[in-house]
Amino acid sequence: MGGGMRAVTVVPGTAGSLRVEDVPEPDVGLGAVLVEALAVGICGTDAEIAEGSYGWSPPGDDRLILGHESLGRVVDPGASGFDVGEHVVGIVRRPDPAPCPNCAVGEWDMCSNGDYTERGIKAVDGFMAERWRIEPEYAVRVDPALGVLGVLLEPTTVVAKAWEQIASIGRRTFWDPQTVLVVGAGPIGLLGALIAVQHGLEVHVLDRVEAGPKPDLVKELGAIYHTGGIADVGLEPDIVLECTGVVGLVQQSVANVSPGGIVCLTGVGPAAAIEASATALATQAVLKNLVIFGSVNANRRHYYRAAKELAAADRGWLEELITRRVGLEEVQAGLQRQPEDIKVIVEMA
Amino acid sequence: MGGGMRAVTVVPGTAGSLRVEDVPEPDVGLGAVLVEALAVGICGTDAEIAEGSYGWSPPGDDRLILGHESLGRVVDPGASGFDVGEHVVGIVRRPDPAPCPNCAVGEWDMCSNGDYTERGIKAVDGFMAERWRIEPEYAVRVDPALGVLGVLLEPTTVVAKAWEQIASIGRRTFWDPQTVLVVGAGPIGLLGALIAVQHGLEVHVLDRVEAGPKPDLVKELGAIYHTGGIADVGLEPDIVLECTGVVGLVQQSVANVSPGGIVCLTGVGPAAAIEASATALATQAVLKNLVIFGSVNANRRHYYRAAKELAAADRGWLEELITRRVGLEEVQAGLQRQPEDIKVIVEMA
Repeated sequence: MGGGMRAVTVVPGTAGSLRVEDVPEPDVGLGAVLVEALAVGICGTDAEIAEGSYGWSPPGDDRLILGHESLGRVVDPGASGFDVGEHVVGIVRRPDPAPCPNCAVGEWDMCSNGDYTERGIKAVDGFMAERWRIEPEYAVRVDPALGVLGVLLEPTTVVAKAWEQIASIGRRTFWDPQTVLVVGAGPIGLLGALIAVQHGLEVHVLDRVEAGPKPDLVKELGAIYHTGGIADVGLEPDIVLECTGVVGLVQQSVANVSPGGIVCLTGVGPAAAIEASATALATQAVLKNLVIFGSVNANRRHYYRAAKELAAADRGWLEELITRRVGLEEVQAGLQRQPEDIKVIVEMA
Repeated sequence: MGGGMRAVTVVPGTAGSLRVEDVPEPDVGLGAVLVEALAVGICGTDAEIAEGSYGWSPPGDDRLILGHESLGRVVDPGASGFDVGEHVVGIVRRPDPAPCPNCAVGEWDMCSNGDYTERGIKAVDGFMAERWRIEPEYAVRVDPALGVLGVLLEPTTVVAKAWEQIASIGRRTFWDPQTVLVVGAGPIGLLGALIAVQHGLEVHVLDRVEAGPKPDLVKELGAIYHTGGIADVGLEPDIVLECTGVVGLVQQSVANVSPGGIVCLTGVGPAAAIEASATALATQAVLKNLVIFGSVNANRRHYYRAAKELAAADRGWLEELITRRVGLEEVQAGLQRQPEDIKVIVEMA
């Protein structure tokens, strides 16, 4: 731990700039707690940054250390209340020093002026390095019995927030939801289905693949797997959790959700070759009293909820979500999406 | 009050079928309270029914008495607690005898199975007649000092519900809204602006007309009038109340609302010549943590709120909303939309 460490860095905005290289030990300015990395999850945002289409480097630096889905072991807690050896995950977003009202009350996930920073994404180095530092108040304990599965905490916070918002918005009226349709069986969709089952709902999951691990993962939850169009599910779900961002599926979600229902959008998809019309969407929203809402990011509350939800899940099931593991030096291979991928992680030696 | 009365009837689904004719006195099965009509408001739904593109007649009847924006004077309260001479408005929607869970708890405005009925729209005669009957529990008292302005209660319930939902949905996070943009200065938009001003918000109203009563009505509220595109308002409003249903304006609303904001849709517009894309809409909903929700109809709670809001409004201002008054025999002229119209009413002799 002397003169440096290996890390994955990229020049944001420059395609092909990703490299695994020696960098200095993490600056103490990033936080009092020194953490040894155990694993880092890879998601679509990392791929976008690697392709040069997203991301910002820290002020004064060309390069950004990538990675925001963290898991590590405390090696030096500094003056914090953590113990050496505890497993922790770093919260991704930070409020601006001159915070908006939401950031000021700790709801930086709902930042209203866009002046936040994000570890590994926006203006602060991320977690794809042998070691990283974090402020004690932005480190969240995870059950060490989860082992490397603790790396699923950050994606779980996305659905923990979505569910919190669904429950809160649902209180606008009398509402006793029974059924949920999850669209897209990627990591967010499957973790969303997990939490929906934990909430006692009848859960349906729709994806385009007919084989591979997804149908089994859904069945193992006690949920029902579907392929085809949303109308073919034969159900007016009370809730739709749309995780693909594919506009045709957004439109089908709005068309098929129950009157008074809630459609939660978590995915940002590509523009479709044939654009779906916003007219039908807006008309149905009115006539069916629908809520359509988007959700991104998470605050401390969602990390704590997600940590409980992960700890309550079946370990074998969570293991199956991680379909590929690469070493830090092989991160390029990890970023190349493969058809069978659900969650790909970088696992430290 | 012997053998019959004048009423406006239509064969739903048949264009050109509207007539003003003699019909029997209202059946006592419609309610114990007999009411003498004072006025009935005309809205877009009435025009649609008159054009044969909406509406359902009562079971066993070909013709439906039109009219759902009511105001009348109690002439025979039956065994109800009303006094002769009180001013009342009839609630429009009724739950099905085999109600859905929402209807069962009195939230028929959020009916989840579509099996409701509506006075003057769906399977029950409306209020465009010299006299009508109503169940005591579906009659709402209005301040008699409002005079004929009480006919504005029903459209006010639409915005009372919208505001209740905005406030309730807003509690999903810390939220301290300061600014609202109302899109469309028709009756719903102007009544929405009135309530927003009553709530202490900074209110902006956008419409396409440059002259006529609308700019003055907005200024008289202490609100700010705009024409042009939504981006030209030069504001990221916390709330947008979209009252036109024009898809291009829905899209501009979503593009310009503040992150974490709420867009409420109350209008159902025509399909646009150039369709707006649902992709941009869905992407912005996610990245900005937006809620987009539609609102239609109202329950008893919204009638009571709206009655208080109307009673608190400036009478002169409300008078200006009613830009044209026709007699029952001239209802055809009232249904023909004219450029200067805001609210047109049928006023009884």
